[in-house]
Amino acid sequence: MTEIIDGNAVASQIRDDLTAAIETLADAGARPGLATVLMGDDPASQTYVNMKQRDCEEVGIESHHVDVDGDASPAELYDAIADLNDDPDVHGYIVQAPVPDHVDYREVIRRVDPIKDVDGFHPENVGRLVAGDARFRPCTPHGIQKLLESAGVDPEGKDVTIVGRSDIVGKPLVNLLIQKAEDGNATVTVCHSRTDDLGAKTRSADIVVAAVGVPELIDGSMIGEGAVVIDVGVNRVDVSERRSEDSQTASDQSDTEKGYELVGDVEFESAKEQASAITPVPGGVGPMTRAMLLYNTVKAASLQEDVAVDLP
Amino acid sequence: MTEIIDGNAVASQIRDDLTAAIETLADAGARPGLATVLMGDDPASQTYVNMKQRDCEEVGIESHHVDVDGDASPAELYDAIADLNDDPDVHGYIVQAPVPDHVDYREVIRRVDPIKDVDGFHPENVGRLVAGDARFRPCTPHGIQKLLESAGVDPEGKDVTIVGRSDIVGKPLVNLLIQKAEDGNATVTVCHSRTDDLGAKTRSADIVVAAVGVPELIDGSMIGEGAVVIDVGVNRVDVSERRSEDSQTASDQSDTEKGYELVGDVEFESAKEQASAITPVPGGVGPMTRAMLLYNTVKAASLQEDVAVDLP
Repeated sequence: MTEIIDGNAVASQIRDDLTAAIETLADAGARPGLATVLMGDDPASQTYVNMKQRDCEEVGIESHHVDVDGDASPAELYDAIADLNDDPDVHGYIVQAPVPDHVDYREVIRRVDPIKDVDGFHPENVGRLVAGDARFRPCTPHGIQKLLESAGVDPEGKDVTIVGRSDIVGKPLVNLLIQKAEDGNATVTVCHSRTDDLGAKTRSADIVVAAVGVPELIDGSMIGEGAVVIDVGVNRVDVSERRSEDSQTASDQSDTEKGYELVGDVEFESAKEQASAITPVPGGVGPMTRAMLLYNTVKAASLQEDVAVDLP
Repeated sequence: MTEIIDGNAVASQIRDDLTAAIETLADAGARPGLATVLMGDDPASQTYVNMKQRDCEEVGIESHHVDVDGDASPAELYDAIADLNDDPDVHGYIVQAPVPDHVDYREVIRRVDPIKDVDGFHPENVGRLVAGDARFRPCTPHGIQKLLESAGVDPEGKDVTIVGRSDIVGKPLVNLLIQKAEDGNATVTVCHSRTDDLGAKTRSADIVVAAVGVPELIDGSMIGEGAVVIDVGVNRVDVSERRSEDSQTASDQSDTEKGYELVGDVEFESAKEQASAITPVPGGVGPMTRAMLLYNTVKAASLQEDVAVDLP
């Protein structure tokens, strides 16, 4: 039987554990605060920001929000960032990506105080992670590590193939998994659009992480028997197109009614036949990314308020 | 015929090109300066520092040196670092590793002004490199990229196996080679002491980089036919032991007279039979590491003095 790794359940457990840590902080007079910054009015970004705020409320983190006009100058965004750097009630914040084209996202990240950089994207935090001295692990790779742990999969000595080299998943994940550390010590191969014979690289892996943003790129023929499959992709696919392809495909009814469904970078049904464990989309990595943002916010508050807490 | 990649020749060409850039800087009244900091009196470290100073003199970089007593407090070393951060004549400096046990090398690195961090070890510089926005590439991986280029080996689409995950070679090299960039776009596998079936990982690679510090760990049976082999290892081996093993082994006469010889992480003779190109030890990667330190110093001076130069 293939194990379907339940990201919602693991994330829920982490949120419970964080609630206890937040109570410890509250008892010391320190309520963790997370701010979201949204420049422009992209509806998807608005949805993500709303979710993050709701997540905060559920666990007792105070949420703050700053809107910046989509036509504003970069300087106005920088001013908002400087204010958050100075605000003692805000222990961590994220600038929702993407920012408008006239703003350099790299420069935005560099202006975030590294101690409040709960995305873990600031160069100083990336550098610390590479050196094995991470302050904030980026949320998605950290969530993947927690999912592996929850499924009893120790990466030590395993062959891991990561498909995708993004700044937010592939790059930090290879750097975490090759560390000489308890949740590292894996032999990692990083693949991407220029990779020759991708199937050979995924088939020989004990653990496959797909984080490339191509719907169902990886099917069962590319998965070795008994491998663990982590699917980071969240791709919207038009339902009418898919129905003509395969009327049997499982899909979430409410999404189907909206005219699309969510699929991962892995073709779930065929990959499941090969895998010993696999994450679904949705309900796999996604909830973990959200939970680990709360984790980083609690850690940021703990560091800034100098109150020790137990982190899950 | 297997190509023996001549690191001395490539490094010499780079030094020549740097000399021109240094003249451009001098014409603008800006002489590049490199400082070395040595804490304690380790003879090997002393030798390295002397070599770096001699390299500087040869190309017209002003060299500075600071000695710190091996028994001094960390604070004394930090003071020396603060002075160098403030010294306008010093555009770059390195704190020679290893530092004594009572000093935290990580903390030392964090105190170096990132704009003067010509080793490229500061977390901010590591983070920028990972993001594809490197300021100073660490000298050894940068030198390896230059060696590949000189041998006409484009890493794009190639399978690269790196053996070793050190902060100064393996980690920065994987991050450079997976970049979506002209000298990147490789599919990279990082191996180390916990790797299962190392031979399979090196045999399937188009390019093998050995940077693990184990004498002749990788022999010809572990190299695929036609692969390019880059040997970063520099290991001293007792000659008397080796002679009893193999009286035919080539060795540098002067070193032999000292009772040891230098060997790489690759068994050169058997690997050469398989490889299309290979670096020797000595005379491969070593001279490149030294040349790229000069490169970074010139770049640091160019950035700090705001004088544009052509870098090789």
